[in-house]
Amino acid sequence: MTDNQPEPCYFCDKLARLDDLPDEEVVWIFPHSVALLGPWQYYQGYCILIARRHVTELSQLGHAERHAYFEEMCVLARAIEAAFKPRKMNYELLGNQVPHLHWHLFPRRSDDPDMLKPVWLSLEHAERDEAWRHRLQGRSQATETTARIREAVVFPGT
Amino acid sequence: MTDNQPEPCYFCDKLARLDDLPDEEVVWIFPHSVALLGPWQYYQGYCILIARRHVTELSQLGHAERHAYFEEMCVLARAIEAAFKPRKMNYELLGNQVPHLHWHLFPRRSDDPDMLKPVWLSLEHAERDEAWRHRLQGRSQATETTARIREAVVFPGT
Repeated sequence: MTDNQPEPCYFCDKLARLDDLPDEEVVWIFPHSVALLGPWQYYQGYCILIARRHVTELSQLGHAERHAYFEEMCVLARAIEAAFKPRKMNYELLGNQVPHLHWHLFPRRSDDPDMLKPVWLSLEHAERDEAWRHRLQGRSQATETTARIREAVVFPGT
Repeated sequence: MTDNQPEPCYFCDKLARLDDLPDEEVVWIFPHSVALLGPWQYYQGYCILIARRHVTELSQLGHAERHAYFEEMCVLARAIEAAFKPRKMNYELLGNQVPHLHWHLFPRRSDDPDMLKPVWLSLEHAERDEAWRHRLQGRSQATETTARIREAVVFPGT
């Protein structure tokens, strides 16, 4: 948390207690960001990539830091692609509820009946339908999922 | 269109006939991408930034081209921010229906009753409610909107 954000921030709090999180939730710690396994593992490999510094728009980062954060996003996305061979990757930086910069990386499955739509319609449905929510959470394979992403991480030039 | 995409592509077709589009629709032509004014101008300044080359994932671009495309996205996003002072920018690269790489840049208004949610819920509603759709389209100011974005474009180092 910095002077930019005197109020409590959900992701600043989360980053401050990474050691308390289950090992399989912390997928990768990059220099500028931290990848956490997301809560909707129907999209197996879904990660949230949180900027380590509290800012709320890409324009608040200098050129070098912005590109470094983007490159980390691309490394993570490529690992998810390599591990799970999605029909399409969806990359989203929203922050309407928690403005601290974070990318949602959703690998979209080819057997998803809603594959032509953004995930948010299905996630909204999950708010009012417990069976639907349970299906989209699908966390039972978290340890294996995280291991498969980690094994697929490749840095350019390595 | 390249060997990667033998089938017709909506955005390749669009890029091939930019001269036929209304001037206010073509917001900016960058070296690696073209910014078009999006159809949902309730989010005043909403643009779609289409990669000039037909690829479908960021991982299909080399490092230099990927970062150049990202930087163009950031230049455009900053211009939209400067022009319309949104509560939050939303950046989304999905491609579930049209896989050719394109960023959606949605400036989110502080008076949007759905400001805490992704735009897609409201856009889905527009599909079945004509008055809602008309509200979200709001194209009457397109010429002014495009002019304001163009005036706000600043390249780093200039």
